[in-house]
Amino acid sequence: MPSPAVHPRRRLIGNLARFKLTIEYDGSPFDGWQRLGEDRPTVQRALEEALERIVGEPVQVFGAGRTDAGVHALGQIAHIDLPKVMTPFKLSEALNAHLRPDPVAIVKAETVDETFHARFSATKRIYWYALINRRADLTLTRGRAWRIGRALDAEAMHAAAQRLVGRHDFTTFRDVQCQATSPVRTLEQLTVTRRGDAIDIWVAARSFLHRQVRSMVGSLVEVGSGKWTPDTMTEVLNAKERSACGPVAPPDGLYLAEVRYDAVTNEDAQPE
Amino acid sequence: MPSPAVHPRRRLIGNLARFKLTIEYDGSPFDGWQRLGEDRPTVQRALEEALERIVGEPVQVFGAGRTDAGVHALGQIAHIDLPKVMTPFKLSEALNAHLRPDPVAIVKAETVDETFHARFSATKRIYWYALINRRADLTLTRGRAWRIGRALDAEAMHAAAQRLVGRHDFTTFRDVQCQATSPVRTLEQLTVTRRGDAIDIWVAARSFLHRQVRSMVGSLVEVGSGKWTPDTMTEVLNAKERSACGPVAPPDGLYLAEVRYDAVTNEDAQPE
Repeated sequence: MPSPAVHPRRRLIGNLARFKLTIEYDGSPFDGWQRLGEDRPTVQRALEEALERIVGEPVQVFGAGRTDAGVHALGQIAHIDLPKVMTPFKLSEALNAHLRPDPVAIVKAETVDETFHARFSATKRIYWYALINRRADLTLTRGRAWRIGRALDAEAMHAAAQRLVGRHDFTTFRDVQCQATSPVRTLEQLTVTRRGDAIDIWVAARSFLHRQVRSMVGSLVEVGSGKWTPDTMTEVLNAKERSACGPVAPPDGLYLAEVRYDAVTNEDAQPE
Repeated sequence: MPSPAVHPRRRLIGNLARFKLTIEYDGSPFDGWQRLGEDRPTVQRALEEALERIVGEPVQVFGAGRTDAGVHALGQIAHIDLPKVMTPFKLSEALNAHLRPDPVAIVKAETVDETFHARFSATKRIYWYALINRRADLTLTRGRAWRIGRALDAEAMHAAAQRLVGRHDFTTFRDVQCQATSPVRTLEQLTVTRRGDAIDIWVAARSFLHRQVRSMVGSLVEVGSGKWTPDTMTEVLNAKERSACGPVAPPDGLYLAEVRYDAVTNEDAQPE
């Protein structure tokens, strides 16, 4: 909950107030984050329609990450400029009421100054990919994880993952429709850990190419099941060819977990 | 997976083989565990129908805990006697195939001898209750937790919970339809812990009265929100009156997490 000491009027930009929203959603029923036209259910559209009902005029929502169809978020970040003075608490309450019954929730709303941009100010994006390695179908986590029935070697996956960490040309792990000007990215972290039959993959970078996380996860599963070795991963990376990539992992297990703005807040900015 | 050294034929009882099943399910679409007639979807019915399709004759499923409508399981235990020699692996594979698309999965199947009874041999039942303490609606955990918007004091809840641990007459926390002969039970553990906005309640006893866990959780929430003190909990327990109980917690957050059979292994078997 926001501190009542911060009066929203102090944050007005002209006569607009900028808010940062932390958003959680179940991606299953959506065609992804980005608004695609009036006939497609997307998270951005759900938010913009809820906002229009609240303030009576169109409001554009700028998100930190354009999650694909079916991909979930625990901590997607967006910013909006509102033509109306509201406390962050009232804004989140009103948005949550107007978002029902869509599985999208504002878990935090904060006032920010006009230099904050959800997408361009972001310094780190952290994704979690949930794998369940067992024979039995999923029940409680159906649509929330990727189940793999054949035995996976999580240690081999972690070893192969380290071949991808650092600054590389990730052409192999980039969707053919990716529109980024450069295929070079700096992967800060890619860890694979097992707890019982759950295998968790955590990935962090300032930014990613289109479908990069799911392409890397699918390729790590090739290592886990013994088809590839960690050395294959290096070869596949160096090939800089999309055709060298493993099968792309399904969206079910992918979560945009957190977006950091370390340059802006100067909090917990730590050398890697 | 079972050890291949244990041949199922060695476990035959007359010409029946007894199996212990560990079962996970999403309780949302079910009218609980227990079979109630041909028109009601229950977990027991789903299992018995799948078994009949596999072996070609009716098979009765004996469960350790009769979970209520909407209650989930991570580790429900059941036993069955099969008129057919099968490996535990083939049995679990066949059951999982025939259970689709119901959200019920056999996560483990084992051969056991004829003295094993899922319900009567159980020495400990462990439940988890998942509370989410936040204003925002649930998205990814919708139907999987009880969301409470008002602030809860988890430490006060834990303190009050300790008033219930031990051997007591739990009439206050027993559904009016409970058919147990005695209202006395020994509560071995009742812990309340907070991690961020998640409040986890873990409960263990050899056995429980009908709706005892949800009745205790609902009463703990009265303490967490400040309506009751830990002393109220003692008064409410001592009242031995159903009307003294707090509102019963919804089934959404309740999971039968584990059933133990320590008497078989001679570990911490306690008389009731």
